[in-house]
Amino acid sequence: VIQYAGAEGVIDLGWGHPDPQLLPVEAWAAATAAALRRAGWTALTYGYAPGPAPLREWLAGHLATVDGRPPDPDELLVTAGASQGLELVCTALTRPGDVALVDQPAYHLALKLLADHRLELRAAPAGPDGIDPDRTAGLVRELRAAGRRVPLLYLVPTFNNPSGASLPAAHRRALVGALAGLITIVEDDTYRELAYPGPAPPSLWSLAASGVIRLGSFSKTVAPGLRLGYLSAGAGFVRRLAARGQLDSGGCLNHTAAMVLAEFGTSGRYAAHVATLRTAYRQRRDVLVAALREQAPALELAVPDGGWFLWLRAPGAAGLARLATRHGTALLTGERFFVDGAAGGGRDRLRAAFSRLGPDELVEAARRLGRAYRELPLAGRAGREPDPDPDHGRSG
Amino acid sequence: VIQYAGAEGVIDLGWGHPDPQLLPVEAWAAATAAALRRAGWTALTYGYAPGPAPLREWLAGHLATVDGRPPDPDELLVTAGASQGLELVCTALTRPGDVALVDQPAYHLALKLLADHRLELRAAPAGPDGIDPDRTAGLVRELRAAGRRVPLLYLVPTFNNPSGASLPAAHRRALVGALAGLITIVEDDTYRELAYPGPAPPSLWSLAASGVIRLGSFSKTVAPGLRLGYLSAGAGFVRRLAARGQLDSGGCLNHTAAMVLAEFGTSGRYAAHVATLRTAYRQRRDVLVAALREQAPALELAVPDGGWFLWLRAPGAAGLARLATRHGTALLTGERFFVDGAAGGGRDRLRAAFSRLGPDELVEAARRLGRAYRELPLAGRAGREPDPDPDHGRSG
Repeated sequence: VIQYAGAEGVIDLGWGHPDPQLLPVEAWAAATAAALRRAGWTALTYGYAPGPAPLREWLAGHLATVDGRPPDPDELLVTAGASQGLELVCTALTRPGDVALVDQPAYHLALKLLADHRLELRAAPAGPDGIDPDRTAGLVRELRAAGRRVPLLYLVPTFNNPSGASLPAAHRRALVGALAGLITIVEDDTYRELAYPGPAPPSLWSLAASGVIRLGSFSKTVAPGLRLGYLSAGAGFVRRLAARGQLDSGGCLNHTAAMVLAEFGTSGRYAAHVATLRTAYRQRRDVLVAALREQAPALELAVPDGGWFLWLRAPGAAGLARLATRHGTALLTGERFFVDGAAGGGRDRLRAAFSRLGPDELVEAARRLGRAYRELPLAGRAGREPDPDPDHGRSG
Repeated sequence: VIQYAGAEGVIDLGWGHPDPQLLPVEAWAAATAAALRRAGWTALTYGYAPGPAPLREWLAGHLATVDGRPPDPDELLVTAGASQGLELVCTALTRPGDVALVDQPAYHLALKLLADHRLELRAAPAGPDGIDPDRTAGLVRELRAAGRRVPLLYLVPTFNNPSGASLPAAHRRALVGALAGLITIVEDDTYRELAYPGPAPPSLWSLAASGVIRLGSFSKTVAPGLRLGYLSAGAGFVRRLAARGQLDSGGCLNHTAAMVLAEFGTSGRYAAHVATLRTAYRQRRDVLVAALREQAPALELAVPDGGWFLWLRAPGAAGLARLATRHGTALLTGERFFVDGAAGGGRDRLRAAFSRLGPDELVEAARRLGRAYRELPLAGRAGREPDPDPDHGRSG
């Protein structure tokens, strides 16, 4: 039925999935009943291609409260989730053989999606504080001078998956200033609303007059099974996407769910639910951070201001991950979040998702990881065990 | 909110949309409540990439009753509607500049979707009974000998949109025999279950050991706003699609709706609803056919055994469509359903959808069309008024 497939007895920190107990089962059933009562058949027929007005209007108003600048409704397109939004953008903007620039580390399954479009992935030049705007602009110009098409730059600047880090506001302005007129910036903004305590920095989209496509999602704030998200972009680009054959044929990419989400939003259920999530996920972050500091104090970590992930630094991370599995907990190794993973990028990193598990399980996972760390050979701790990791990708 | 935008006072036969009164508003609310009660959080989290087992298992059993051969559940992939299924197939199989072969007439918005992928559309050779298998095979070989990639053939062999026609079973076998090993056949099977009185001919997919991808849909049988469909194909191809980044990232392409549809199916609501639809749409077909024979007896038409459309032959069809609009009814002109529309394909054709309107409106539409026909200048009736039609495409 579902994507998650855990191993018996393993407390798995590898999956960026929501806690089942935090999914709004009853509230979604109630919103569905209310939306169908209110909208009747209009919730079930072909929807207006960019998305139904009730959702776009509610969302525009809502984004005014969590971002630097609210979109106009005609700058919003309802998608079937952020992944489908990225797929749509790739189909519209790229051709096989193009170069896609990506910030690092970056959401590994977005890298896979980009590669599916037969794009050549290149890391955007970066310094210790993240992507370097001027050197990235230079790389774009250099590639184009060599005859390459470079249609887009993909990044997760806010509560990054996997690192949890966010670009500071000044860095965002520099990035937009150097790049927004040069290359389409595809901003994966999936985690914006899970800010602890908040608010999140302004989106790149909100800082740019044009040239940014922001991918939003209701997977983290409501439920991933809905396959419902949105993008904000220039009104002209939204019209261009809405005129594509797929949308001209099928209408809104997820109309019925969009009508229910509008009800969920305007009724106040959304705000109440996200407030609950923020409190719960913030607590889990704090529980896991405290437990790791106690159980594995040599692991380096930075406490993220939002999102679902801790990004641990551990020399010999692959060896530690293997030992951890033997001790009954699991994490993702860092290479998969790097384009140059094979060359060693992310080799000393592990991603731990604190989203799927309750506080007690997080404490026990930290204990197991601590035991594994204490068993790690000194050679491994010093980084001499960079074996490849056989895990394959999965959501989140 | 919705895609449909009618003009005041016009009874519009142009839109291939369901009758609002036939959309299962209460039954869908009830199925949603039941599915969420039964499946709980598993209906809301990331779904198993090819689609949840309850839907694939019910669907496999159900297809056994409406097609020549039932798929195994692992030959099924849940999609976000037939249009998204076609988009997915194009993304997986095609590259810009490839040749896509299409049967004619063919669903105009599928042609648009294929063109969005920068494919060169070529009409498959055809005789009076439809696509010619051997000449089509010859064209594939000829194009490949000239260095072109020819990844797929698209057609709607069952209750065709726009023509309502179906390929006879023997013709299907010849088609599959000549082509299924040579080129991927993409079979748009959207209308299969709306058979009057039924059953529909076996799908190409059911007749082929491999080489056919069948696109199915719940848009006509349940509700298009759900954006829920499926495809059946070889288990290996299904696995290949399910492993793409978009699905690895987001899980099932429309998981929550799929879980509700499983409930809708296993509870018996689906069978009862489709039986109601068959009766209602068959009646509308009969009402429109009878009214047209009375009001505009010179219009040629063949009574379709299923689907939503009548395909009228009227010399000077574009002029008739313009006159009809002045008399308060509207149809789609035929050119848009042809790759070579600009060269005159479909010039003497009009598509009338009987799906969206009630019997009284259909009778009145036929009256208005009859008035328009009687006003058509003799020159137009003889086919000398082939003016282009300014209508743009829309769903269905």
